[in-house]
Amino acid sequence: MSRSSDHLRWSESSRDKLLSCRIFDVFLSHSSAPDGRKGDFYLLSAPNWVNVVPVVRGEYGGESFLMVRQYRHGASMMTTEFPAGLCEPGEEPLAAAARELEEETGRKAARMSLLGRISPNPAFMDNWCYTYLAEDLSPAGERSLDHLELLDVEDVPAERLIREIGTGEFVNSLTMSALFWFNLKRGADRNRTDA
Amino acid sequence: MSRSSDHLRWSESSRDKLLSCRIFDVFLSHSSAPDGRKGDFYLLSAPNWVNVVPVVRGEYGGESFLMVRQYRHGASMMTTEFPAGLCEPGEEPLAAAARELEEETGRKAARMSLLGRISPNPAFMDNWCYTYLAEDLSPAGERSLDHLELLDVEDVPAERLIREIGTGEFVNSLTMSALFWFNLKRGADRNRTDA
Repeated sequence: MSRSSDHLRWSESSRDKLLSCRIFDVFLSHSSAPDGRKGDFYLLSAPNWVNVVPVVRGEYGGESFLMVRQYRHGASMMTTEFPAGLCEPGEEPLAAAARELEEETGRKAARMSLLGRISPNPAFMDNWCYTYLAEDLSPAGERSLDHLELLDVEDVPAERLIREIGTGEFVNSLTMSALFWFNLKRGADRNRTDA
Repeated sequence: MSRSSDHLRWSESSRDKLLSCRIFDVFLSHSSAPDGRKGDFYLLSAPNWVNVVPVVRGEYGGESFLMVRQYRHGASMMTTEFPAGLCEPGEEPLAAAARELEEETGRKAARMSLLGRISPNPAFMDNWCYTYLAEDLSPAGERSLDHLELLDVEDVPAERLIREIGTGEFVNSLTMSALFWFNLKRGADRNRTDA
């Protein structure tokens, strides 16, 4: 876009690391505005995240998703979400998505394609969440969960998730982003087929 | 849902506050699994967030959104997002949404309705984001930005945001969630009109 951002763009002079928390670090950023104002901002630095939308044929012929059901310590509740995880150091998002799919569901995908990437929270987080569509799944041996992961795999009909997202256990915002892209892609696929 | 969660549900025995960061606190939660495994989990405790979808008639007759353009310190980039903010202590989400709309855009809405609520990240965050549709807007005097807020208001055609979400400056995942609900509601409105 050609319009100017010069009057809005802050510039960081330095940052201090306040805390290391395994899945993120907390920083205090010292920045100044174009008008000379100075401000300190708390930031979270985290590895990129990946989200996987594994599509299978459901019991009744329609499309279903393989989703994971687990207790979430932040929200203190059970959730049902798309398989997801963190990129390891140096790991590309696509490789991380394939690994998480295999670890959490015991399946591998013959086809994986990027649906999009989004900033979980640009205000205070520096990472991105990459979402992949995973198709043509086949068994890949035993699941291999992290030491502190306890989860079940569930088959959720696509139309049920579209109807119920935002309610019950379907409350993860990144699962909602993934579903947004999935809907967009299926709409585009239909338009191509109709044309 | 009737299926059992007993084998998945962790239980917290205690938590330590590690850091207070104005917009969130960091805790370490000490928990145990149903099988006796023990684990420590880093958590962010934050006030609830609100997101507002302010709808206006655009220049060319279609629907537009009032959005805010600002530098985001987490992602280190300019973003264009729906007006948003934090609930103050004791403040209801609806009141916070009306306040943020007025502070950031200088408009008030004759009608505000809840589109939905979502967990920004149930894995490690304990708060919820409430999204409201704001309609029938009118001027409400001067904008009143926080000391460290620098932002412009922009009119973004709805069809442009739907086409470009996830690209350029439209990268905030919570703006995407809000757009998901907006699309769902407009689809339902159309179905009602067609019936």
